[in-house]
Amino acid sequence: MVKCAICVHLIYSDIVQKCREELKAIRETNPDLKPTLAIIQVCLCCYIPADFVSTQIGLNVMQICLPRQCTEDEVIDEILRLNEDSRVHGIFLHLPQSFLSRSCHFEVFTEMFVAVVICQHVVRSSTRWIQEQQYQPWRLRPLKLQPLSPVPSDIEISRAQTPKPISQLAQEIGLLPEELEAYGNTKAKVHLSLLNRFQHQPNGKYVLVAGITPTPLGEGKSTVTTGLVQALSAHLKLNSFACLRQPSQGPTFGVKGGAAGGGYAQVIPMEEFNLHLTGDIHAITAANNLVAAAIDARILHEATQSDKALYRRLVPSVNGVRCFSPIQMARLQRLGINESDPSDLTPEEVRAFVRLDLDPEKVTWQRVVDTNDRFLRKITVGQANTEKGHARQTQFDIAVASEIMAILALTDGLADMRARLGRMVVGSNRNGQPITADDLGVTGALAVLMKDAIKPTLMQTLEGTPVFVHAGPFANIAHGNSSVLADKLALKLVGEEGFVVTEAGFGADIGMEKFFNIKCRTSGLKPDVVVLVATVRALKMHGGGPNVTAGVPLPKEYINENLQLVADGCSNLKKQIQIAHLFGVPVVVALNVFKTDTQAEIELVCRIAEASGASAAVQCHHWSRGGRGSVELAQAVKKVASQKNNFQFLYNLQDSIVEKIRTIAQKVYGADDIELSPEAQAKIDYYNQQGFGALPICMAKTHLSLSHMPEKKGVPTGFILPIRDIRASIGAGFIYPLVGTMSTMPGLPTRPCFYDIDLDPVTEEIKGLF
Amino acid sequence: MVKCAICVHLIYSDIVQKCREELKAIRETNPDLKPTLAIIQVCLCCYIPADFVSTQIGLNVMQICLPRQCTEDEVIDEILRLNEDSRVHGIFLHLPQSFLSRSCHFEVFTEMFVAVVICQHVVRSSTRWIQEQQYQPWRLRPLKLQPLSPVPSDIEISRAQTPKPISQLAQEIGLLPEELEAYGNTKAKVHLSLLNRFQHQPNGKYVLVAGITPTPLGEGKSTVTTGLVQALSAHLKLNSFACLRQPSQGPTFGVKGGAAGGGYAQVIPMEEFNLHLTGDIHAITAANNLVAAAIDARILHEATQSDKALYRRLVPSVNGVRCFSPIQMARLQRLGINESDPSDLTPEEVRAFVRLDLDPEKVTWQRVVDTNDRFLRKITVGQANTEKGHARQTQFDIAVASEIMAILALTDGLADMRARLGRMVVGSNRNGQPITADDLGVTGALAVLMKDAIKPTLMQTLEGTPVFVHAGPFANIAHGNSSVLADKLALKLVGEEGFVVTEAGFGADIGMEKFFNIKCRTSGLKPDVVVLVATVRALKMHGGGPNVTAGVPLPKEYINENLQLVADGCSNLKKQIQIAHLFGVPVVVALNVFKTDTQAEIELVCRIAEASGASAAVQCHHWSRGGRGSVELAQAVKKVASQKNNFQFLYNLQDSIVEKIRTIAQKVYGADDIELSPEAQAKIDYYNQQGFGALPICMAKTHLSLSHMPEKKGVPTGFILPIRDIRASIGAGFIYPLVGTMSTMPGLPTRPCFYDIDLDPVTEEIKGLF
Repeated sequence: MVKCAICVHLIYSDIVQKCREELKAIRETNPDLKPTLAIIQVCLCCYIPADFVSTQIGLNVMQICLPRQCTEDEVIDEILRLNEDSRVHGIFLHLPQSFLSRSCHFEVFTEMFVAVVICQHVVRSSTRWIQEQQYQPWRLRPLKLQPLSPVPSDIEISRAQTPKPISQLAQEIGLLPEELEAYGNTKAKVHLSLLNRFQHQPNGKYVLVAGITPTPLGEGKSTVTTGLVQALSAHLKLNSFACLRQPSQGPTFGVKGGAAGGGYAQVIPMEEFNLHLTGDIHAITAANNLVAAAIDARILHEATQSDKALYRRLVPSVNGVRCFSPIQMARLQRLGINESDPSDLTPEEVRAFVRLDLDPEKVTWQRVVDTNDRFLRKITVGQANTEKGHARQTQFDIAVASEIMAILALTDGLADMRARLGRMVVGSNRNGQPITADDLGVTGALAVLMKDAIKPTLMQTLEGTPVFVHAGPFANIAHGNSSVLADKLALKLVGEEGFVVTEAGFGADIGMEKFFNIKCRTSGLKPDVVVLVATVRALKMHGGGPNVTAGVPLPKEYINENLQLVADGCSNLKKQIQIAHLFGVPVVVALNVFKTDTQAEIELVCRIAEASGASAAVQCHHWSRGGRGSVELAQAVKKVASQKNNFQFLYNLQDSIVEKIRTIAQKVYGADDIELSPEAQAKIDYYNQQGFGALPICMAKTHLSLSHMPEKKGVPTGFILPIRDIRASIGAGFIYPLVGTMSTMPGLPTRPCFYDIDLDPVTEEIKGLF
Repeated sequence: MVKCAICVHLIYSDIVQKCREELKAIRETNPDLKPTLAIIQVCLCCYIPADFVSTQIGLNVMQICLPRQCTEDEVIDEILRLNEDSRVHGIFLHLPQSFLSRSCHFEVFTEMFVAVVICQHVVRSSTRWIQEQQYQPWRLRPLKLQPLSPVPSDIEISRAQTPKPISQLAQEIGLLPEELEAYGNTKAKVHLSLLNRFQHQPNGKYVLVAGITPTPLGEGKSTVTTGLVQALSAHLKLNSFACLRQPSQGPTFGVKGGAAGGGYAQVIPMEEFNLHLTGDIHAITAANNLVAAAIDARILHEATQSDKALYRRLVPSVNGVRCFSPIQMARLQRLGINESDPSDLTPEEVRAFVRLDLDPEKVTWQRVVDTNDRFLRKITVGQANTEKGHARQTQFDIAVASEIMAILALTDGLADMRARLGRMVVGSNRNGQPITADDLGVTGALAVLMKDAIKPTLMQTLEGTPVFVHAGPFANIAHGNSSVLADKLALKLVGEEGFVVTEAGFGADIGMEKFFNIKCRTSGLKPDVVVLVATVRALKMHGGGPNVTAGVPLPKEYINENLQLVADGCSNLKKQIQIAHLFGVPVVVALNVFKTDTQAEIELVCRIAEASGASAAVQCHHWSRGGRGSVELAQAVKKVASQKNNFQFLYNLQDSIVEKIRTIAQKVYGADDIELSPEAQAKIDYYNQQGFGALPICMAKTHLSLSHMPEKKGVPTGFILPIRDIRASIGAGFIYPLVGTMSTMPGLPTRPCFYDIDLDPVTEEIKGLF
């Protein structure tokens, strides 16, 4: 608990009077509040009597009158001793008069401050303490940015800016010190208790950044997001928060590089953002792989032990007493066994209890690793002598593909996360019944491993504006959006007039559709505006331009002006605007300008966008100019967000699985119909039978086309969407139909990024990250 | 940079005079020091002129004279603005007189303090600032401990004690705020820059805790270590530091439980200690697996591409320019190719450069995971279509078995760590030449991944005394000791009269031998005393008692008094004392007392121990009583550590590999001789040929017997130690002969620990960890 100190500089007795009045006012206006209080009084002749405080104000305040001849150390010791005593709510220190005439009182005074700092007393008035529990206007101090030309590398730009201490940023935006857990000086986890403190605080505006169908190079949604908040907060002086996904570490060393934005629209320090951050993905890896180890070990133990032996080991006699653990009691309940004494179970009940009877062929849970390790795409495990005879084929996915990541992104708190972790289906038994993490008895351990990961991480942009980095689920087999919790915290923090800008992965047909139908449905939050990111490059591709391939120089069509390609390609932009309108949300088109774009191309795009129903269409220069380059976008977003909208979901959960899939395929992708493989149809029957039919749909489709065919650009029509198979993430809470094959484990190229990455052992500076 | 504030309370002008004198004295006695300085002056009529400070003291101090009518906000804003200006070394604030007669000056005064706190100004005099750069006597405030009987569970004891804020502990032991990186409120990483600041500070006493040959249950070295520092610091008021290994997270959920000590001798919060901590093991996992992914990807790329294609991809043309990266230049140098223009290489040179030609059969590098996953003990990777034809058999080890962990434990800084990472041998090419991480081009990326892990983590014991937790290499295939860096930092921090207590894994024949011959040789540190931990239980086992097995109740011999078994078993204790004496280090025997031990048994052990050459032998009750129960041990350690000793290594590095192994086998284990398998002999020839012959030896032997036969208790004699195979960790810097089979991947039992582990979603408290 933070102890609140009033520091009274008593030269005039009117101060005493003022203090009395303030303390009394606190008590009267806030009868429920018991602010802890430390009164440090340097006094000549008068002071506030401690009993006055205790009786009038109702606080437990201790008065210390130190002996006349006490030393400075004794003063400090006394303060520290009292600070550690949890019964003492405050310290009321009356220094003997002699201190003030002794030449040493200068040191006493400074020592006292040191003591106060040591104790983490925040020196402020009680009035302030109470105010701070309420919503505070921001006192954001943006960092100055002086963009260079040509634009240096991302790591150079990031390194050239000194971030504010994260505790300072936290204070500027109204976080209390006890709501912050620093991880070094540039990142901190924020406690979920904030949601309680601000439960009556209205939310700010909720802005989604989505994109048109991208080229394989990406069209800059993250930089637009970052540039937009830099413009809103640092230039328009409006509270704003960016909520970003945490990137997988694997691709950082592979082919993709970092994901902290780029140019002058970045989250800093970019190396922290791109590496371990605060360990959330590592926690997911540990939790995911504990489930995997538990599955295989359990299969082995069941295969090699009798019911009796299993039961004896699962419910051992400890000091002569056998009893079920709470986790086991929960399993008994699920099995409909109402005994609580282990000796009362019938042999059949024992058998039901000890045998999950998992079918090794039907284990759906995979191990994960946060490395681009293609050789783990298909493996055989259990080939050692100790497991002989139980080898089986399985695979590793990249860590962010874990269902636990999707849960982290969708949960609204610890209790909900624990419940979702327990519901995760890891496979089925030989009778076809789903087996869950709860059945494995591992739920509690998973919650323990994830207890810190659930808190969003606070960082800052290049211009010192706040950013939450939290969760980064796959955008195909999962929903590709950052966490509900980060958005919720940010919406409270920015205040009613503020803006939260969050990003959805892939094109709008995928990321935005899932943002609305899955994330907003789960969170109950209503979006105010969609920012749709387009580039002249991608539009030219949709207009019939040649292939765009990573690592290969761009064909000349993309470097020289070509208005026809742009005009033709705007069909994709128009379609994505229409998709947003299906949900009743207005669209601002953000044209992310490259230096090869001509004025005529830019104007053409903006004109067509507005003609296609966009509420506004503006060009953005955040990459080369930071927030200043996105001011026009920020103004457009501000204006459009203030309009009323009619947000609605695209389908009802109660629709059948087939109907839900068909709705997305037809209305969003523009397919004529869907076609289910026999596997898919069988899975639908199975999920319906298991009671999973009312979950939302999370399509696993390529992001390179509105259709399932990556090579079909623009707005493909006249196609039937094939549903190859259907899977489910029951804990996360969605069903994901597979359209084509999804790789869940990237590889390393011949020349991986790590060839350029190094650390200067003296300066500790990182080189080669981009 | 921390700005240093002098807070001047100017009531009397003699203070001004005093201040002037102090500032002048600083300048005169420390001509090189430029302490940054903030002077906040609340003044009636006189102040220290800023130009006086600037010219006389040589600091860049800015004086601000605010307008008479300025508001509080303006004052604060000005302070904050200046604080962010890196050119300003200090703030010299002269408030107008009017402030002191206005009724609002109370708020101004408190606001100013808030500003000071916000800015992370440490409010103290310049004298203090300079003093703090030097070694500071500790001002440790131990936490009070009131042990209960019967002793509650470890997690209950841990949770019942509120740890000090880690920043407070850091300040108490003389760390500067800028040397600390908090990870939450109870753990923090400490910067290695401390070693520079204290380079002229003499080391404290260096105490090693080792044990007799243990039962499979362990004999309590960690609790003795923790209890000893609690006794030294909290009861004898001597500076002391415990240096512990970070435990693997896998066994926490398997069979072993936590490793933070136990009972009333624990590191708190124990759940932080046992779970992710500050992410070091996660960083090792990421680094280790990046090497593994790079190996397999490289083999695949080389197998499927021509020299020319490989060269084109490895050295691509970027904007028409081809050049080698620094990492590639280093490889060219190793190959003896002195060209720097990629077009100048001959086809043969290109071939040598692009082909590591790794033999898939001779890859020695394994993947790791920090989970007890027995099904990964032997696996086949690369079975997906995308890698078809390149499947190979390999394995996962538990993360702490990674060579990178051994490197972390032995390195002395970033540059050394980077060099060691680069030297790691991952396999050999088809010509039998070793291939290193440097050859893979991954060294820089590994250093980047490990840049935070290299900083030791500060935590505290139950009694609020400091602990470093850092590194935890395997005690058989590696050397089983915590990090050199943590010990070095701690030895400086405790001061010349202080104590650093570090622990070696397994029995003294393994952990202590490696501590001396490997760790001390690498670090150059000299141990002062060995604390040898014994239990009546283990001694009875060595005396011929029945088998002790985990999870099975102890036979009656271990519960009832049996002096004969104890007396016979002391042979093992005597032998381990003699081993320590081989190295010239005196021994204090610590008998870790269990409640079933009788007074006669305890006295017998102590008598025999002293007769066997121990400098002292005392009983310890830390588990039930905390530091108070180890005061006698602390006194004995203090006394023995003050005696001079003649530390020496057991062998010279220049001895042949066989000779070094034989020396350890005969002198430490008591073997008659060693016997090399043909594989072992071939490896020795190979290592000699590669120039690895002068590395120290790290024996991989069972810890359950002095011999290689776990069932042989006491002091086995008349045996030949078989060396089955020999391996090498070139980066870590040792050769490890295998005596028998070492499991590097534990499994989960039928009823793993996680059955009892859970999280309360409301209180966030963890249940079931032990």
